[in-house]
Amino acid sequence: MLCSGGIDSTTALAIAHSKQFELYCLSFSYGQRHAVELQAATQVAETFNAHEHLVLDIALDRIGASALTTNTPVPQHTNAADVTDDIPTTYVPARNTIFLSYALALAEARECSAIFIGVTAVDYSGYPDCRPAYIEAFQCMADLATRTGVEGRSIKIKTPLISLTKAEIIATGIKLGVDYSITHSCYDPSPDGAACGTCDSCLLRRKGFIAAGVPDPTRYAHPLQSKT
Amino acid sequence: MLCSGGIDSTTALAIAHSKQFELYCLSFSYGQRHAVELQAATQVAETFNAHEHLVLDIALDRIGASALTTNTPVPQHTNAADVTDDIPTTYVPARNTIFLSYALALAEARECSAIFIGVTAVDYSGYPDCRPAYIEAFQCMADLATRTGVEGRSIKIKTPLISLTKAEIIATGIKLGVDYSITHSCYDPSPDGAACGTCDSCLLRRKGFIAAGVPDPTRYAHPLQSKT
Repeated sequence: MLCSGGIDSTTALAIAHSKQFELYCLSFSYGQRHAVELQAATQVAETFNAHEHLVLDIALDRIGASALTTNTPVPQHTNAADVTDDIPTTYVPARNTIFLSYALALAEARECSAIFIGVTAVDYSGYPDCRPAYIEAFQCMADLATRTGVEGRSIKIKTPLISLTKAEIIATGIKLGVDYSITHSCYDPSPDGAACGTCDSCLLRRKGFIAAGVPDPTRYAHPLQSKT
Repeated sequence: MLCSGGIDSTTALAIAHSKQFELYCLSFSYGQRHAVELQAATQVAETFNAHEHLVLDIALDRIGASALTTNTPVPQHTNAADVTDDIPTTYVPARNTIFLSYALALAEARECSAIFIGVTAVDYSGYPDCRPAYIEAFQCMADLATRTGVEGRSIKIKTPLISLTKAEIIATGIKLGVDYSITHSCYDPSPDGAACGTCDSCLLRRKGFIAAGVPDPTRYAHPLQSKT
C-alpha cells in the first residue's frame, strides 16, 4: 500500500482491507513541505491495523524542480474551475515512478502479491503518472525487473480508484467506514496542520465532499466561500 | 549517469564523455556493505569533470532481502565457472528500477536528454533488471511517466555496454583512457578497501582483465590463484 495520508490512498487502503489483504504500508518523507501528511499516514496505517508501516526518507528535495519540494509558491485558486488540465508546478519529476519502484522492492522483499496505489484519472491534478497507460507500462516493466516476475509470479499493481470521481471515492470510503477527518490533502497547510482550502488539492477535496453529499470534516485555516 | 564506481558504469561514463555530453552523475548510498564504492564513484566523477555528482541516501537496507544490504554472507567462489546463471543472493529487489527512477527524476529536473546506465547482458550476475527487454520496458514506462515524455521529448535510456563482454568493456575503456585502478567492484572488501578476489563481482572483474590482455590494477586482500 502506498499510503500518503490523503483521501485517495486511504480509500484504496480501505478497499484492500475489505478484501482481507494483510497490509504493508509505505510512506515517504521526500522533503515535501507538508510533513503533516506523514502524521496522517501513520494514523491511517494504525487505524487499519497494518502489519508494517515503513516511512522512508528519500530526499527528493535534492533533485528539486517542483513546488512541493522547493520554495516555489504552491498555486492558489478561489474556485475549483480554475484547476486546469495543464501539468501544474506541483508536479514532482518521476514521483509515482520512484514511489512504485520502492513499493515493488518492498512487495518482493515481503512476498506481497499486490501493490495498491490510489491514483485516479478522473478528478486529478493533471499528473502524467496517474494515467492508466502509465500504470500498465509500469506493470509490464515490473514483471521484467524482478526475481518474482522472472519466476512467473507477477506482483499486481492495483488501482481500484482509477475510474472514480472524487465524490465516488469518498462515497466508497464512507461505505467502508473510513473516518476522513484523520486524512490530509493540503499542499500548503499552516504550521498547526490546518488546510489552506485554496490549493489544487484542497479544492478537489472540498468539491468531492460537496458532490458526495457528505459533510467535509477538514479543518481549514480560513473561512471558505460556500460555492466552490 | 548512474555511477557506481565499478568498471561498467565508469566505462559507460567514459563513452558519454567521449560523445561530449555534459555529465550529471548520480550515486546511491543504499546500506550496501561496500561503502568504498562511493569513494570510487566520487573519484570517477571528478576525473571526468562531471557538472554535478549527487549522492543520495536511499535506505534500501530498511527493505532488506539481499546479501548486499543485510548480514547474509556474500557468496564466495574459487573459480569463475562457479558463477551460475541463477539469480544470486546479492540480487537487491527492484534496485535498478529504483536507480533508474531517480535518474529519470534528475534527468527531467536538470533537462538532460539521456540517462546512461552500464548494464550488460553478457558477463553479468544473472540479475533480471540488466536485460534488454527490461530496459525497453523501462523506456516505455518513462515516456508515459514524465512531463518531458508527454511533451514529446523522450529522455533516452542509453546502454552502450549491453552487448559487450567484460573483456570488451575493459578494452573500450582503455582506448578511452580510463584508469581502472580508481574503480571498485568487490561486494565484500576488507576494511582498508582491498578487494576479496573471490566474490562474483571480483571473479568477473579478474576474468575480464585476463581476457582483455590488460594488467589488472586491482588491490586484492589475498594472494590469488593464477588461473581463474
